[in-house]
Amino acid sequence: MFITFEGVDLCGKTTQAEILISKLKGYGFEVVFVREPGGTRISELIRNILLDKENVEMCDVTELFLFSASRAQLVGEVIIPALNSGKVVICDRFYDSTLAYQGYGRGIDIEKIKVVNELASSGLVPDLTFLIDIPVSEIYNRRRQKYGDFDRMENSGVEFYERVRNGYLELAREEKRFYVINGLRGIDEISSEVWSIVSEKLKVRGK
Amino acid sequence: MFITFEGVDLCGKTTQAEILISKLKGYGFEVVFVREPGGTRISELIRNILLDKENVEMCDVTELFLFSASRAQLVGEVIIPALNSGKVVICDRFYDSTLAYQGYGRGIDIEKIKVVNELASSGLVPDLTFLIDIPVSEIYNRRRQKYGDFDRMENSGVEFYERVRNGYLELAREEKRFYVINGLRGIDEISSEVWSIVSEKLKVRGK
Repeated sequence: MFITFEGVDLCGKTTQAEILISKLKGYGFEVVFVREPGGTRISELIRNILLDKENVEMCDVTELFLFSASRAQLVGEVIIPALNSGKVVICDRFYDSTLAYQGYGRGIDIEKIKVVNELASSGLVPDLTFLIDIPVSEIYNRRRQKYGDFDRMENSGVEFYERVRNGYLELAREEKRFYVINGLRGIDEISSEVWSIVSEKLKVRGK
Repeated sequence: MFITFEGVDLCGKTTQAEILISKLKGYGFEVVFVREPGGTRISELIRNILLDKENVEMCDVTELFLFSASRAQLVGEVIIPALNSGKVVICDRFYDSTLAYQGYGRGIDIEKIKVVNELASSGLVPDLTFLIDIPVSEIYNRRRQKYGDFDRMENSGVEFYERVRNGYLELAREEKRFYVINGLRGIDEISSEVWSIVSEKLKVRGK
């Protein structure tokens, strides 16, 4: 079982992924949790280039390929071996992020990105994808609450995030594996909804 | 005018590129010379990951995307601006290397790599491509003559190089921009042949 969490920055997907992992472990599942970009030695080297604020001159297509390189390594080295050994893999971002951010957000051709994604994932498709959806104004509310500097990826404007959000919603309409979750609700309410879907798919008793 | 040099390792393409540059400069052309992978600050960071011998666990598709990321940055930051300002750009390896090495050599789907190449080059196609062709046995002869350690990319076997060489020859049959040059001849003989083709294309007088 391969589960991915998607959504704009600060939508709460990492929190939800962590809660789900803890519940799955409670039921005795072996779970592998990975985040993108990163998750292997080589992928972390690539992540450093992507998130380094010095690299302001990076072209959009360069960014696309660096995310894809990091993903290809993660798929080959971690995700496929874990799935083959019967583990549940939970991924904080996967290739839908590339379609939403580099495709809908930055305007790179969607059909070409789909070819890139297929190569990067060796044809692997998530069984379940949770899209934690929040309005763009809520990203800015949450940023204000959360003190700190932003990395290069987050220095983009409202219009960019509107395209990303709408892109995600478009992807969710296209594929059955998507569940769109209203991210404005409380953490417990969201995690209950996520768990009801996952526990049914995994046929967990006594949920 | 955008000219690329291609061929297996040690075929002599870098030497030929350098001779051509010197001749072009002698005729007053402004020439930009770039090598792949590398040629920009970000591309060199990517090059370091690609050529680091520690990175033995790198997947073939990761390698494909890292080369493509390096190229996308080089195209956006150096090659397109140089061509737009009327300079001659000479590239020691370009996307045909990816088709030959990662496609024919490592077995990644050729049609998918063509989509990746089109993204990485922003649709740019070389005006002239010189394929310096040598038999694979000659690579090994030249390695023996040249003392030194090999980087990770060169630790591959004879069969791999046979596929790469035949892949290059296949590409040359498909596209008119290719000139296949017999790389077993002397340096001066080869550079005269290259110059006769380039000088005609550039309509250089008194060659």
